[in-house]
Amino acid sequence: MSKHLTKRAEDYSKWYNELIVKADLAENSAVRGCMVIKPYGFAIWEKMQAELDRMFKETGHQNAYFPLFVPKSLFEAEEKNAEGFAKECAVVTHYRLQSDPDNEGKLRVDPAAKLEEELVVRPTSEAIIWNTYKGWIQSYRDLPLLINQWANVVRWEMRTRLFLRTAEFLWQEGHTAHATKNEALAEAKQMQEVYATFAENFMAMPVIKGAKSESERFAGADDTLTIEALMQDGKALQAGTSHFLGQNFAKAFDVKYASKEGKQEYVWATSWGVSTRLIGGLIMTHSDDAGLVLPPKLAPIQVVIVPIYKGDDQLQAIADRVDTIVKELRANGVSVKFDDRDTMRPGAKFAEYEMKGVPVRIAIGKRDLENGTAEIARRDTFEKQTVNQDDITTTVFKLLEEIQENLFTRALDYRNAHITEVNSFEEFKDVIENKGGFVSAHWDGTIETEDKIKELTKATIRCIPNDSKKEEGICVLTGSKSERRVLFAKAY
Amino acid sequence: MSKHLTKRAEDYSKWYNELIVKADLAENSAVRGCMVIKPYGFAIWEKMQAELDRMFKETGHQNAYFPLFVPKSLFEAEEKNAEGFAKECAVVTHYRLQSDPDNEGKLRVDPAAKLEEELVVRPTSEAIIWNTYKGWIQSYRDLPLLINQWANVVRWEMRTRLFLRTAEFLWQEGHTAHATKNEALAEAKQMQEVYATFAENFMAMPVIKGAKSESERFAGADDTLTIEALMQDGKALQAGTSHFLGQNFAKAFDVKYASKEGKQEYVWATSWGVSTRLIGGLIMTHSDDAGLVLPPKLAPIQVVIVPIYKGDDQLQAIADRVDTIVKELRANGVSVKFDDRDTMRPGAKFAEYEMKGVPVRIAIGKRDLENGTAEIARRDTFEKQTVNQDDITTTVFKLLEEIQENLFTRALDYRNAHITEVNSFEEFKDVIENKGGFVSAHWDGTIETEDKIKELTKATIRCIPNDSKKEEGICVLTGSKSERRVLFAKAY
Repeated sequence: MSKHLTKRAEDYSKWYNELIVKADLAENSAVRGCMVIKPYGFAIWEKMQAELDRMFKETGHQNAYFPLFVPKSLFEAEEKNAEGFAKECAVVTHYRLQSDPDNEGKLRVDPAAKLEEELVVRPTSEAIIWNTYKGWIQSYRDLPLLINQWANVVRWEMRTRLFLRTAEFLWQEGHTAHATKNEALAEAKQMQEVYATFAENFMAMPVIKGAKSESERFAGADDTLTIEALMQDGKALQAGTSHFLGQNFAKAFDVKYASKEGKQEYVWATSWGVSTRLIGGLIMTHSDDAGLVLPPKLAPIQVVIVPIYKGDDQLQAIADRVDTIVKELRANGVSVKFDDRDTMRPGAKFAEYEMKGVPVRIAIGKRDLENGTAEIARRDTFEKQTVNQDDITTTVFKLLEEIQENLFTRALDYRNAHITEVNSFEEFKDVIENKGGFVSAHWDGTIETEDKIKELTKATIRCIPNDSKKEEGICVLTGSKSERRVLFAKAY
Repeated sequence: MSKHLTKRAEDYSKWYNELIVKADLAENSAVRGCMVIKPYGFAIWEKMQAELDRMFKETGHQNAYFPLFVPKSLFEAEEKNAEGFAKECAVVTHYRLQSDPDNEGKLRVDPAAKLEEELVVRPTSEAIIWNTYKGWIQSYRDLPLLINQWANVVRWEMRTRLFLRTAEFLWQEGHTAHATKNEALAEAKQMQEVYATFAENFMAMPVIKGAKSESERFAGADDTLTIEALMQDGKALQAGTSHFLGQNFAKAFDVKYASKEGKQEYVWATSWGVSTRLIGGLIMTHSDDAGLVLPPKLAPIQVVIVPIYKGDDQLQAIADRVDTIVKELRANGVSVKFDDRDTMRPGAKFAEYEMKGVPVRIAIGKRDLENGTAEIARRDTFEKQTVNQDDITTTVFKLLEEIQENLFTRALDYRNAHITEVNSFEEFKDVIENKGGFVSAHWDGTIETEDKIKELTKATIRCIPNDSKKEEGICVLTGSKSERRVLFAKAY
């Protein structure tokens, strides 16, 4: 494979796909639409998981595990949910293969091993979980029920892209049950906040919090809250959603509780999830023409040390010195790699770690040994400085913080520069086509208008921002009255 | 559900099933053979995962993620592996449901959405992984490749039991590739050691390390190493296996590497796994007629504090005192729960935590407040002591260590008392039928004898122990010559 990475300005989509492969994050597999997440990509996901898991537990949630399969009769119990996912679900129909005498003994499905009831591979787990909750919830004392699951799900998408849209993906799905509508609404809101905090503080990816329009809601939800990020090519990415499910699943699965007053009431529900799609968002928020750029808080390797040497003696001398540096950094919680491979030149190593987005690179050569110095380079700005070896830990600490902050600020500036208020459909089209980003526009609130705008511009309503103010105006397409602006964008 | 737990002596199998439900570990789901792992059970699995994951990483492995589905043509590439799993695999044949006009619009498989090639839900991932490794391995520099995956797998077993044998289960599967046979053998051995260390040091479950006989090997392996534990009812449990796969998968998927000398060589492989089955082993190693008994190192809650009070004032006074105790224990890394529920009496709480296997229980009442004391009870022996409140942390620390050790010793004594050397088939049958446990016997090394013994006694060869000595003898069934004893037992 060529070492050259297509430039973003040339072909953003090609750049994205190449970067993922060259940075060793993931690759397509032999299964249509399914990816292999390679160790380096998976290490990023593990860091995300660890942080999110901590945040979920801090907010009172516990992990559990529910079956991969959903019997068809349960799958279709909540009508809207079933309708939304039936078109793209993998279905298990048989439980055995046998050798086929008509085809050289190759394996075929054994017709005698047909399931009585087909099993849907979960595209999301509301159905199987609410069917289980029925047995867990009797009284108000059993509520709230606050559960999360880390799992794989399958949605048979026709057009897939690594991380952004894959037939199988990894995610977490929270499923909670509450005694009152307000509690459920507060939970949905809380998890939107948790996602936003995670996106901004760890991924350094600014997000807009808002609610989806009716047609963009999760199938089966009464309200879908979202965090929307902006990618470098001006397209939006839905990065996480938190749904208020009302009593839809409680009614579909007959889940009632006895209130303190002894009345039987339907339970209120939420569900919320983020997935490996976040890694796609991370890539398209920060990376550049040299490769991946990672925020230090999610970087599997935060610092790489590359020795510049001739001959084994020099390498040994450098290695001895590096040993102390590595120990000190590790003792301070920094993840460090010392790359002493003798099969590759320093320049090639530099390029490799730039491609892999390692935030800080330290190079130590013969002269550095003599002078007690090291060269430290940061990935985000390519700036270099020569520091005293005794100051390495302090400098690295400072740099990791600065890089984390710089990535966020840079992305925020870009995002803020790409929210454009428009007041006519001409402007709307112009911004969507030429500038990209979010367009803040008045909309008459009808699905028809939303559909028409999508048809004409490919832009969809990303959200009605939480902080949108009431403002009298007229719909950018129809001229009908409107009371607030919403955000449109082309989206992944 | 009745609070009464069936006694082990009455019906061990019933006791096991009841305990799992009453201790809130897991339950059967609406999907045949698949279980729901409840939060308390899942918390034990998380503790196991964390420890194992640490051990895998310490031995140089990285995590990755491979697709859930295996296309049929890949599945059948390694013949023996395919043969071994074809009989019990879930098969996806369609990717869409549609509403059925002949059945009130209920969903049915859409005949137009039939997959060109069926997808097997992974029962194990050698096939999909080795097909991927083909692209990752070119030269000796790419080796060893040391990868692990945490995943769900599906084996359509006809007779299932919670944790021990479920159609879907959670596990980890390591898949490694090596340049030489010896390296692969050493890896398989190393992982057997890791599993044994984990079982003994964390689960407090003594295991015998050995190799499987040919007929008990993993389908596609040249050698299967195992750790075998003994349950309280005298039946053995295969708790983890590590396979030397030879070049079988390398040949099936044509995975070669260029050696230093530039020759193309097939790669050598291992795979190894443990699963949620371990939780079944944990239960049947330590638990008693009062419920679950957990080793402190894997207990989600290590200490529970129960207040004994009348009225809110007393509760408040106790809670204030407990607050300090809880903080001190937590600061020392002990997981503590203060159960101040006012809906349950102390006696009922005691029973609940006994059922859930919490290692240490602290009770504090009015008199304790006056005297500055607390009552501490240990779950494994039910022993109680009254200690000064200032000594709680020290006492808890000591107790947690003692309990961990006592559980191991108790299980080891039981296990050692249940390895019986026999020299005739009469003795063999007698021990298997009446005493249980492992029978150490001479075997002529043939599959026929192994099968015959299984047919006559239901006992199988659990392993040829790593530490078995060469010893001249005659096969317990056929009288043919034998050079070493092997261990037989009835097994789960």
